[in-house]
Amino acid sequence: MPCWTETFGDGSREGPAVTQFVGVDHMARWIRRDGAERIIRDIASCLEEDLARWESFEKIPRLASHTPIGVIELMPITDMELYSFKYVNGHPSNPARGYQTVTAFGALAEVSTGYPIFVAEMTLLTALRTAGMSAVAAKHLARKDAVRMAMIGTGSQAEFQALGMRELIGIQELFVYDVDPAAVAKLRGNLEPLGFRIKDCADVDEAVDGADIITTCTADIQQAKVLLDRQVKPGVHINAIGGDCPGKTELEGAILDRGRVFVEFEPQTRIEGEIQQRAEDFPVTELWQAVTGAAQGRMSAEEITIFDSVGFAIADFSALKVCQAATKGSDLQSDIDLIADPDDPKDLYSLIL
Amino acid sequence: MPCWTETFGDGSREGPAVTQFVGVDHMARWIRRDGAERIIRDIASCLEEDLARWESFEKIPRLASHTPIGVIELMPITDMELYSFKYVNGHPSNPARGYQTVTAFGALAEVSTGYPIFVAEMTLLTALRTAGMSAVAAKHLARKDAVRMAMIGTGSQAEFQALGMRELIGIQELFVYDVDPAAVAKLRGNLEPLGFRIKDCADVDEAVDGADIITTCTADIQQAKVLLDRQVKPGVHINAIGGDCPGKTELEGAILDRGRVFVEFEPQTRIEGEIQQRAEDFPVTELWQAVTGAAQGRMSAEEITIFDSVGFAIADFSALKVCQAATKGSDLQSDIDLIADPDDPKDLYSLIL
Repeated sequence: MPCWTETFGDGSREGPAVTQFVGVDHMARWIRRDGAERIIRDIASCLEEDLARWESFEKIPRLASHTPIGVIELMPITDMELYSFKYVNGHPSNPARGYQTVTAFGALAEVSTGYPIFVAEMTLLTALRTAGMSAVAAKHLARKDAVRMAMIGTGSQAEFQALGMRELIGIQELFVYDVDPAAVAKLRGNLEPLGFRIKDCADVDEAVDGADIITTCTADIQQAKVLLDRQVKPGVHINAIGGDCPGKTELEGAILDRGRVFVEFEPQTRIEGEIQQRAEDFPVTELWQAVTGAAQGRMSAEEITIFDSVGFAIADFSALKVCQAATKGSDLQSDIDLIADPDDPKDLYSLIL
Repeated sequence: MPCWTETFGDGSREGPAVTQFVGVDHMARWIRRDGAERIIRDIASCLEEDLARWESFEKIPRLASHTPIGVIELMPITDMELYSFKYVNGHPSNPARGYQTVTAFGALAEVSTGYPIFVAEMTLLTALRTAGMSAVAAKHLARKDAVRMAMIGTGSQAEFQALGMRELIGIQELFVYDVDPAAVAKLRGNLEPLGFRIKDCADVDEAVDGADIITTCTADIQQAKVLLDRQVKPGVHINAIGGDCPGKTELEGAILDRGRVFVEFEPQTRIEGEIQQRAEDFPVTELWQAVTGAAQGRMSAEEITIFDSVGFAIADFSALKVCQAATKGSDLQSDIDLIADPDDPKDLYSLIL
């Protein structure tokens, strides 16, 4: 799968400008067709390529609109050839009302014309790209012999996290805990048929005992202590993906002092990540540096590594490219009528005559 | 037309969550059905209601990504009940390559759930809402006896500007100038059948001579002097809508010193507007103040008033609401498959089984 996206061309117009669309049903069909594991691998591969050229991207912290009940965010990024953005919400109380916690959609646009070329649902795609990002981090930061992952929180993201970690770094065993037993049963029902060995745990202590990787993925907006300092043993890699808003953290702060902390994009993580709990000059390493070798990944079998993940636009950019390329020319893409295209570009009014 | 939008409800789920879509073809059909003038009036009316409750909005300057060839922007806003954003580009060299200068689309979302409820093309809708914003400003700032408008620049926005100014404040005569004679001929062809009296002018001097309102709407990204100080006579209202990016202005700076300058949202206009040419503490009045009476509109027949318009998200918010309400329940709206909706909200993975 090339990490590549075809655009309208090199600037001179050829034929009608049409935006392609992949909705939820077609996104799900694509995932069934190619397999979630393979897609997560392709996204991770494309993401590593994009992380390796980090300096070529214009990056800003996402734009968040907070209300007491949740957050709505816009996440743009561009490499000056393509531009992407994602609309995404986070409403922890949504499942109790029958809604998804996270709903997302987004677009790829061609910088040379400013025209959107591809629009997609991104609820499923976000789950895939978050799994890809977590797996890329674990590839560089977890012990090479990692086989067991503790999962604290088994909501919408959990299956994708497990598949990504198995596909990229060989995780086979899941020790899982969630305050909602039904969510654990759901995970078991989805993943056991795929060959995972799953242990339901009575509490976090049991889940993390002997874990090589600990993934925390909970939804409450609060300064939670989902994982305590005493529960973290030498050599573990912590994949902390649920703490991603101001006032929303999952790790007891002391954990951050015991290992190196890796982040996606420092200015955004200072606002949203676990490191909210630490001083503004608390040392962190951006993940792209581990990918390029500018910074060392895991340094020893005993080191504790922490991926303080909040979700960054570059992963959406990579995922949209992979989805666009993989579905191109198939009936998974359909035209969406987004581009006003009068014969005379200065005669927009002619469209309503 | 109520300035009102139905959402999914008060928080508890009833039936499937579906996002409605209005593409370019259906937007054009809506405009033909209801008439551009009436729609601009409805948007202006809704916009005035929204401007009157300015303090209830969370406002930020739009997020712009600049390249040498153009700009791509995201424009979000929320009143904590609804959230809207627009994706919009500005590429002045596009028409020469067969593309539109401006292409846009956007969405309305329900803050209580974070779900998008309405997605629309916004190239046409932006032209309508810009005309609505200009007309609202002119209603409060132009002389009541205004009948003649000079239009400098007759591109995609021009017809909509003219229709809005006639509908809301009674403009009947257009004195027009554009460097491109074909663009002037286009305007004449579109507007004369609608009863406008149009005079082609040889230059800006001829166009502005005797004008009650001067609208500047040009596309070049440069510090242009489309309108010179000596061309501005007492009593005129200047509707400056083309200068809307850092480094993109239309007015000779001295004009700004001769009258009161009104802006949409001061923090954004400081970055993008004509007042880039003036000190950071150059006095301006936000338009909503003229709408509520917090600030006086036109104060005398001799006063020069300047609307330094760059385009602000509140107008998109108002326009999306009007479009959503007016097309609701008709075949102008269609379902767009943007919301992943598993039976168990925590079982996103079930969608790909």
